[in-house]
Amino acid sequence: MNYKMIRYIIGMILMAESVFMILPLIVSVIYGEFDVIMPFVYSIMATFCVAAFFGLKKPKNDLVFARESYIAVAAGWIFVSFFGAMPFYLSGSIPSLIDAFFETVSGFTTTGATILEDVEILPKGILFWRAFTHWIGGMGIIMFLLMLTQFSEGHSLYIMRAEVPGPTVGKIAPKSSSNALILYGIYTGLTVIEAVLLLFGGIGVFDAVTTAMSTAGTGGFSVRNAGIAAYESAYVEWVVGFFMIVFGVNFNLYYLMLLRRFKIVFKSEELRVFLAIVAVSTVIMGINATEYYGDFGVAIRKAFFQTGAIISTTGFGGVEFMNWPMLCHSVILVLLFTGACAGSTAGGIKISRIIMMFKMLRKESHRLAHLHEVTTIKFEGKIVDKETRSFIMVYISAFFAILAVASIVIMMMRHDYETSFSAVLSCLNNVGPALGEVGHGGVYNMFGGIEKLFLSLLMLTGRLEIFPMLILFMPSTWRRH
Amino acid sequence: MNYKMIRYIIGMILMAESVFMILPLIVSVIYGEFDVIMPFVYSIMATFCVAAFFGLKKPKNDLVFARESYIAVAAGWIFVSFFGAMPFYLSGSIPSLIDAFFETVSGFTTTGATILEDVEILPKGILFWRAFTHWIGGMGIIMFLLMLTQFSEGHSLYIMRAEVPGPTVGKIAPKSSSNALILYGIYTGLTVIEAVLLLFGGIGVFDAVTTAMSTAGTGGFSVRNAGIAAYESAYVEWVVGFFMIVFGVNFNLYYLMLLRRFKIVFKSEELRVFLAIVAVSTVIMGINATEYYGDFGVAIRKAFFQTGAIISTTGFGGVEFMNWPMLCHSVILVLLFTGACAGSTAGGIKISRIIMMFKMLRKESHRLAHLHEVTTIKFEGKIVDKETRSFIMVYISAFFAILAVASIVIMMMRHDYETSFSAVLSCLNNVGPALGEVGHGGVYNMFGGIEKLFLSLLMLTGRLEIFPMLILFMPSTWRRH
Repeated sequence: MNYKMIRYIIGMILMAESVFMILPLIVSVIYGEFDVIMPFVYSIMATFCVAAFFGLKKPKNDLVFARESYIAVAAGWIFVSFFGAMPFYLSGSIPSLIDAFFETVSGFTTTGATILEDVEILPKGILFWRAFTHWIGGMGIIMFLLMLTQFSEGHSLYIMRAEVPGPTVGKIAPKSSSNALILYGIYTGLTVIEAVLLLFGGIGVFDAVTTAMSTAGTGGFSVRNAGIAAYESAYVEWVVGFFMIVFGVNFNLYYLMLLRRFKIVFKSEELRVFLAIVAVSTVIMGINATEYYGDFGVAIRKAFFQTGAIISTTGFGGVEFMNWPMLCHSVILVLLFTGACAGSTAGGIKISRIIMMFKMLRKESHRLAHLHEVTTIKFEGKIVDKETRSFIMVYISAFFAILAVASIVIMMMRHDYETSFSAVLSCLNNVGPALGEVGHGGVYNMFGGIEKLFLSLLMLTGRLEIFPMLILFMPSTWRRH
Repeated sequence: MNYKMIRYIIGMILMAESVFMILPLIVSVIYGEFDVIMPFVYSIMATFCVAAFFGLKKPKNDLVFARESYIAVAAGWIFVSFFGAMPFYLSGSIPSLIDAFFETVSGFTTTGATILEDVEILPKGILFWRAFTHWIGGMGIIMFLLMLTQFSEGHSLYIMRAEVPGPTVGKIAPKSSSNALILYGIYTGLTVIEAVLLLFGGIGVFDAVTTAMSTAGTGGFSVRNAGIAAYESAYVEWVVGFFMIVFGVNFNLYYLMLLRRFKIVFKSEELRVFLAIVAVSTVIMGINATEYYGDFGVAIRKAFFQTGAIISTTGFGGVEFMNWPMLCHSVILVLLFTGACAGSTAGGIKISRIIMMFKMLRKESHRLAHLHEVTTIKFEGKIVDKETRSFIMVYISAFFAILAVASIVIMMMRHDYETSFSAVLSCLNNVGPALGEVGHGGVYNMFGGIEKLFLSLLMLTGRLEIFPMLILFMPSTWRRH
């Protein structure tokens, strides 16, 4: 195993983080928040020193294979969460180190679960950092690095694969640096458009920028205690609702649209199913919530917002769905499982995996019944090979197994069924809000320290799509062969 | 499609059922229950007439392939449940036809979910029929037929496979009729031993026989409202607890034991894991329930009984586990998912599938990490081929997908999360008791008619292991090719 390269990659990740932290520092300076300036400076220095120690010298042998990549990415995300927690801790915004770690993991993994009951008392610099972790975590830290650093081509694909969500990683450009540049370009562009549109809603620059970053990463941290509802604006709700859907779409499709290859985009199976689910859920919940709001127009808006918030795993609060009829809860539960498209910033099992699961179920039924030999499965017009098929089924089974075991672990800590199951599902799918004790505000305060660490690991497991974390913690990884 | 053979097989199944019903008729006569004698006679006549109409003439072309087999078995089980419900309905014991159907499905699928709040007022003939549906459903109706009828060899394997639980059907004898004879022989032998041991407990012949049949099928219907606890006997609890474990073991192993091939038995991976889970669960729950009972001996006995009741999916009431500490509930939830061994009369996902799932998860992690190429997976000393592997993963995914969708359907009928999820899981795994509104008595009375039919279909889906029911209801099955 190339330990030196693992160390080097972690170093690079931390180096990037120390640069990221300069942004909230600038925000603090602008708003004259002198009590958080030094915490940011200390955090930047500490992160930079460790990064320099780890990553200053590039190893001569820079070959990384799958194993090293997975380990580096999984460990890198843990490191980055630890150092990213420093500003929260040092500024006194979050007095407990475990809480600060939980909050940062929740930020980078774009979960949006929080331990803060009152965010409006926090300094703007801290709130900006919180939203920024969503933004960078959404598209990915490694992806950011790939824009700047040149790993040996081919090997960078391994590293990318460990971080990018979805069953297959489609490269849109031959070079991984151009690939990363295109994706981050589209990502930034869309974020800016949302922020500008939100500015028209009259919510001010700071709220517009942080909300846009939070939406882009499909995270869900808000700078208001009441979330999006705080703005009391139908316009803002429509804009945020729309962009939650936008960021739930595979980014490769946006690139194809830029290339004017609309035909391929419209033919995308995953996109079609995704939009159909959004439309159907909005209509069902809209009709059902009409009795609650007494107005169909309002109900449809709220239903659209809630559909976007859940299917994109953003989890913005702001809609009182706990009081909606039970049928709406059922719809929300379905959306909680599916998640959005592969190659987006959203979490969840992903629509593409679910489509393929149903295709495989049909295939196996046909095979059993010898109806007619369906030997191949097609997805997006291409034949899905056996390795991918097997991998998807193992992924889904592993997902449910982890969900079941983790719920039971949380139950053992004396929480009720509803809380345990919904909190675990919410963390694993990077949604944020849950049910029961966690309520729909997504405040995870009543969990103990060990539980918070456990839930943090679950968030990371969900964000990196199970296998990197599994490989990191598997004893056989560390055995000498 | 060979429609004539499907009709013929259904006819044979009903023919067998009309013969089965003679037994409770005899019981009624013995106990002088004149008001249920005629309902049994009518039921037998009706079933016989339909059976004769369907199955009197064996088609010239008696070739059945997988598709016909699955359809015949799935439809046959629905028919048999409908006709089996007649004695309950005609005798007035269960005044609603839907309720009677639900009760019979629950009987044949060995679920043990009931709509009866007071069973002690029922005639003995009815109670006997109720227990007998468990016994015959446990080993299987088709399996019973195979002892008597000779289908073309090779094709009978298809029919058997549709009914016998587990990922693979191991034949222990070259001819399927000898195979069925051996299995039913062992089954009957073990049932008789249990009944005799229970007689020593002083609970009377009727209770001993019905309880033994209920245990053998891992069903859970009792002739007492308080279940096994009604006997207030530690001895009875130990015997029933022990036999629930016994009937959760793959029956092929008993045959190997009869052949004195103990080495193979002791080497069985599934048996080892099964017994280990039983031991660990008993100890954990025993220690934890000691504070509730104030006595370790009592607690261990109760824990052993409960472990057996859940892991074998028998679901006998009789232990107040709802009042046990939360940790015990977690253990019970794990057992609810696993179920017992393949080739036993128990339901659930089955230990063998879970073992293989973990092996595949490890394999995929290794493959991703390029650690060392594990290209094969071994189970019970044999290499698991790709088809079986893919089938197991599809099975587990389908199981969870059905669980999720069905829970949501029940939730839509305005039941709470806990009730919906636990009732669906309980029916799908053929356990019986559930949580929430269903409580631990397993009385499904508060569900509406449509919900009961839906849960009945779930019980059948679980008993026949998903695919036969899926194939029966899949539109493409009925399309002409």
